Amino acid sequence: MSTDESAAQDAFLEADVFARNCGSRDVLQNLTSRWGLLALLALTEGDYRFNALRRRVDGVSERMLSQTLQTLERDGFVTRTVLQSIPPRVEYSLTDLGRAVGASVEGLIEQVEAAVPEVMSARERYDDRPPRD
Amino acid sequence: MSTDESAAQDAFLEADVFARNCGSRDVLQNLTSRWGLLALLALTEGDYRFNALRRRVDGVSERMLSQTLQTLERDGFVTRTVLQSIPPRVEYSLTDLGRAVGASVEGLIEQVEAAVPEVMSARERYDDRPPRD
Repeated sequence: MSTDESAAQDAFLEADVFARNCGSRDVLQNLTSRWGLLALLALTEGDYRFNALRRRVDGVSERMLSQTLQTLERDGFVTRTVLQSIPPRVEYSLTDLGRAVGASVEGLIEQVEAAVPEVMSARERYDDRPPRD
Repeated sequence: MSTDESAAQDAFLEADVFARNCGSRDVLQNLTSRWGLLALLALTEGDYRFNALRRRVDGVSERMLSQTLQTLERDGFVTRTVLQSIPPRVEYSLTDLGRAVGASVEGLIEQVEAAVPEVMSARERYDDRPPRD
């Protein structure tokens, strides 16, 4: 096994997000993209059809939501189900992995929402202070 | 109060990340930027001087790390302390808010690191299946 292969193998066996080439960075970025986080959070509420999800994730374009869902599906967090109806309906739901990660994302986002007033005060203090050395 | 002001007030009082103009979206994005997440995670390990932090967050440029830390400091997650020594040393640490959010970020990232093998298998299955309708 070459040094490169062995490094890749180690990265695979023990993911470390601090390592520049670790696959976990890629996964983390797909999950924590602007729309990835919000789509995942919405799906923790229940299954969604595309247009309903688009209304929930206020401000996302059709194209961006579609790309986001495809990435989440490819990474195994989301399932896309085509229901046999006329016209056919497509539903998105979380996989077991998506539900597990979704719970953490939900916790983080609730914390961030609760922190908004504190963050706004911090910004005011920062912007008001004299320029530094 | 105008409709705009009243909407802004509501957004402030009850942050909702699903609302297009809610300030929480902005805060969330600063935190979950590629380097924001990693800098925050590193600082959960302890205080860091700039260059040591840059080595820990493998792959970040000086400019990007500096911007990231400034944003995290402005939002109240990180404190920058100038130590009176010759030459002066600058240390970065988490605020109480940064520690609270950092714990959630740490949990999420550990989950993502553990999920890498499952994600890689999901990607293989996705890429191997026939193109859909």
